[in-house]
Amino acid sequence: MPEPLVFRFDFVSPYSYIASEKIDAIAERFGRKVIWKPILLGAIFKHLGTLPLTRQPGLHDYSTNDFARSARFHNLPLNMPAGFPASSVAASRAYYWLHGRDCALARRFAHGIFRCYFVDGRDIADPPVILDVAAGLGIAAADLTAGMENPEIKNKLREETDAAIALGVFGAPWVTVDGEHFWGADRLPQVERWLERGGF
Amino acid sequence: MPEPLVFRFDFVSPYSYIASEKIDAIAERFGRKVIWKPILLGAIFKHLGTLPLTRQPGLHDYSTNDFARSARFHNLPLNMPAGFPASSVAASRAYYWLHGRDCALARRFAHGIFRCYFVDGRDIADPPVILDVAAGLGIAAADLTAGMENPEIKNKLREETDAAIALGVFGAPWVTVDGEHFWGADRLPQVERWLERGGF
Repeated sequence: MPEPLVFRFDFVSPYSYIASEKIDAIAERFGRKVIWKPILLGAIFKHLGTLPLTRQPGLHDYSTNDFARSARFHNLPLNMPAGFPASSVAASRAYYWLHGRDCALARRFAHGIFRCYFVDGRDIADPPVILDVAAGLGIAAADLTAGMENPEIKNKLREETDAAIALGVFGAPWVTVDGEHFWGADRLPQVERWLERGGF
Repeated sequence: MPEPLVFRFDFVSPYSYIASEKIDAIAERFGRKVIWKPILLGAIFKHLGTLPLTRQPGLHDYSTNDFARSARFHNLPLNMPAGFPASSVAASRAYYWLHGRDCALARRFAHGIFRCYFVDGRDIADPPVILDVAAGLGIAAADLTAGMENPEIKNKLREETDAAIALGVFGAPWVTVDGEHFWGADRLPQVERWLERGGF
């Protein structure tokens, strides 16, 4: 049984959104599963003393154009949300709570959150918006609200972000295939080649 | 007559080396020429207050691995030179001097410098190494040495770097197609699509 890929992402990272629409199909072609792990890029940048792409000197306009162009390149809808980037803390907690109950449902919820933010432009930092995405999947608001407030779930998100830092993760999306790390949606062709050949 | 592409690069940028081996063939498939312009990334980083990839916090090991992996992905030899990065000032001046005399020869010289640095691992900051590459192309050492010391040539390199800064260039390789800018060897598939469809 081959190892699953690990797909680390932040719900407010545009390139993570792009990769989220591609990674499962790539893995599936090679008989692989994917473990999805939201992490908090903000905490990682703070730890490293780095900045998100759009706040790096000289990169704002280029990056904003490249987000949209890269989405079009992959035939994906993308509308950059007002007030980008939002906090992804609540949505990430909701994901981990759901994941503990139903992996497949958590995956559908993750797609829902990404599309809610990057297609519909809604504020995924806002709990009612998260509950709305969940409601569309038949998840009860009271359960999810309690889940997001659960100290174990809050701790899980912290632990996953700390584990990512310990692993050397400095950005997202971050795909790990048999111990090899690939940063960025633009490395998906390399991920595919790696899966195909078992390395190159 | 369609506009030529502009390919801006630094001779000590590994992703520029990768792009240098690909860009002419891509352009040619769409009946386009490419204007090659070496620029000084060091001056650009200094202007912006940014750092090369390998010196950004947390990125050194990943980047070093990715340089080699990306070269293998493109079936190109790459051996990271000792003391990377070297100064590319002298080689860039030599390029512009040659370009004023013979465009095609300058292109072959540029390939020679990239391969001398990234395949043979020789120090392209060292004038005798540059003269050696030039000698292999039948260029007389005395002429090239005088060319590299020519104040107009020194000025040309400064002007091209300043023009890149004015254009918003913050990294390399940097490919411009009909006013659209693409940063990174990993954007070559988008360059190709842009050429194919006249935008997307």
